[in-house]
Amino acid sequence: MTDENLQVRLASRPAGRPTAGNFTFTTEPLPVPREGQVLLRTRYLSLDPYMRGRMSDAPSYAPPVEVGGVMVGATIGEVVESRAPGLEPGDVVLAYSGWQRYGVARADMVTRLDPASGVPVTAALGVLGMPGCTAYVGLTEIGQPKPGETVVVAAASGPVGATVGQLARIFGARAVGIAGGPEKVEYVRSLGFDAALDHRSPTFTADLAAATPDGIDVYFENVGGHVWEAVFPRLNQFARVPVCGLVASYNATSLPDGPDRTPLLLGTILRKSLTVRGFIVSDFMASHQPEFLQRAAPWVRDGSLRCREDIVDGLENAPEAFIGMLEGRNFGKLLVRV
Amino acid sequence: MTDENLQVRLASRPAGRPTAGNFTFTTEPLPVPREGQVLLRTRYLSLDPYMRGRMSDAPSYAPPVEVGGVMVGATIGEVVESRAPGLEPGDVVLAYSGWQRYGVARADMVTRLDPASGVPVTAALGVLGMPGCTAYVGLTEIGQPKPGETVVVAAASGPVGATVGQLARIFGARAVGIAGGPEKVEYVRSLGFDAALDHRSPTFTADLAAATPDGIDVYFENVGGHVWEAVFPRLNQFARVPVCGLVASYNATSLPDGPDRTPLLLGTILRKSLTVRGFIVSDFMASHQPEFLQRAAPWVRDGSLRCREDIVDGLENAPEAFIGMLEGRNFGKLLVRV
Repeated sequence: MTDENLQVRLASRPAGRPTAGNFTFTTEPLPVPREGQVLLRTRYLSLDPYMRGRMSDAPSYAPPVEVGGVMVGATIGEVVESRAPGLEPGDVVLAYSGWQRYGVARADMVTRLDPASGVPVTAALGVLGMPGCTAYVGLTEIGQPKPGETVVVAAASGPVGATVGQLARIFGARAVGIAGGPEKVEYVRSLGFDAALDHRSPTFTADLAAATPDGIDVYFENVGGHVWEAVFPRLNQFARVPVCGLVASYNATSLPDGPDRTPLLLGTILRKSLTVRGFIVSDFMASHQPEFLQRAAPWVRDGSLRCREDIVDGLENAPEAFIGMLEGRNFGKLLVRV
Repeated sequence: MTDENLQVRLASRPAGRPTAGNFTFTTEPLPVPREGQVLLRTRYLSLDPYMRGRMSDAPSYAPPVEVGGVMVGATIGEVVESRAPGLEPGDVVLAYSGWQRYGVARADMVTRLDPASGVPVTAALGVLGMPGCTAYVGLTEIGQPKPGETVVVAAASGPVGATVGQLARIFGARAVGIAGGPEKVEYVRSLGFDAALDHRSPTFTADLAAATPDGIDVYFENVGGHVWEAVFPRLNQFARVPVCGLVASYNATSLPDGPDRTPLLLGTILRKSLTVRGFIVSDFMASHQPEFLQRAAPWVRDGSLRCREDIVDGLENAPEAFIGMLEGRNFGKLLVRV
């Protein structure tokens, strides 16, 4: 067992695409838990697109990571030392230790996981975690697909997109998934989506039209960019657009060339009575997570809700894996095995 | 009494700003009501911005007026001849006769008005009509202002905007109205708005900031253009934007110069968890009009909900009045006394 705490810190704020140089590695002595706290050894670190926002000091819904600070992130950790009742060494918990080998946490800020539940503990970072709950909240609160309606989602091989499509089908809607490259498209199809499209194909716009003959009733927006351009004209009257991410523009340093199509967007929102609504899942965890877990855990256990995991070994590889994810180089829920 | 039916028809579709040449006048013999119908003599014709959309054949929520067809519109008419039980000559009704002196209507498609109700019958075209109900639906269904929140609306001397602000205050919110020119601004202030601003002022953006020190929670969008530009950065986390009109762009023939700020709009919707939702009041009349009338009629009677009327005499002046309205040259609810 390593007795030093390897950490990944923000060295500098990226301009555009993050580079390895925006991260720095440090080692520190193990932190010492105080009364009510536990010392955790990180087993898995979740890498998620929202972290790009935390690297920037542009105004956002959450404060940025300070330059020099440890990168934030959800983790699965094993209790090494406990000064809190109810948690024992060896317990496995969902925590927010960030990009480091060890962390201390207040016992009431972690969630004990049951390794014998029939669901891999890593699901707590994926289909049963923040990504899965994002899909659930966006669909149930905003998208509200009715049976027979068409739901479209991009990054459909990722944990949010995969969950959106599978939930849409569980709710009786048609699910059309968009992904990058034939391998991911094939995987999306294997999840039971009614159609799966490659946004890199030169015929993507026509493919989308063919796959949505009745238009699009719900577009779960998590990428933006040219997928949005193709989807936008196909939105039906009264369509709903939950906006949970815009990965395609997270690394952008300038706006696209003109003309300014803002009036076109607002005009279409008016003409088609569209609902375009942004949401951050953390605002809904308290109200929706219990219901989500209660409904979704059986689906995960019986295989009707799943998402592959893309596991990278070694905390030292976290920066490169994260940079690749922003460009779609991961394939499934991206985790670092620490 | 004129025994011919003067009509205003769409002569050609406007490219940009409508001109007098887009309209043509015709006369026809009086139409003859059939069983179940009434012959109406138009007393007042309502002129509303949505009519610009009906002159165009661009895709919209409602079919366009055919070239050569009579311009559509809500009217207040007097029954001249009745072939329907329950309606007698002399009765005054709300109808949709369009831009003409006479019209026939099915008795079940008109609403009898009570000239002795204490409310002028013209209110049925303004604060108690489609414009008032638009304000009510947009605020209660989408804007949902909470006490103490800040509601901003433009075209605040018009029937929708004036109603939005007065309802917002009735609901306990702060109301900030925007209008064009000192006279309209003074009028908006006299309606009880907490602040009234002139969008033509060179200090408009700063004035808006000063008038919304706590940001903007609800922006009732009915104009677009440079008012939207000023409002957009001041929207608060979780702000709601009911989109009911975009008068500033109705005559536009091209998009503004770039860059394309669509990603900025979508990114802000995401970052601030905004709700931007378009609506057409006709989709809500069946569900909301009875409740609206029940609540709002007493407010109109006691003077807590009002809007001035801008009455133009003579159907022959309707085209010019309509063209002027799209440029903000009216002052209050625009009506034609036929």
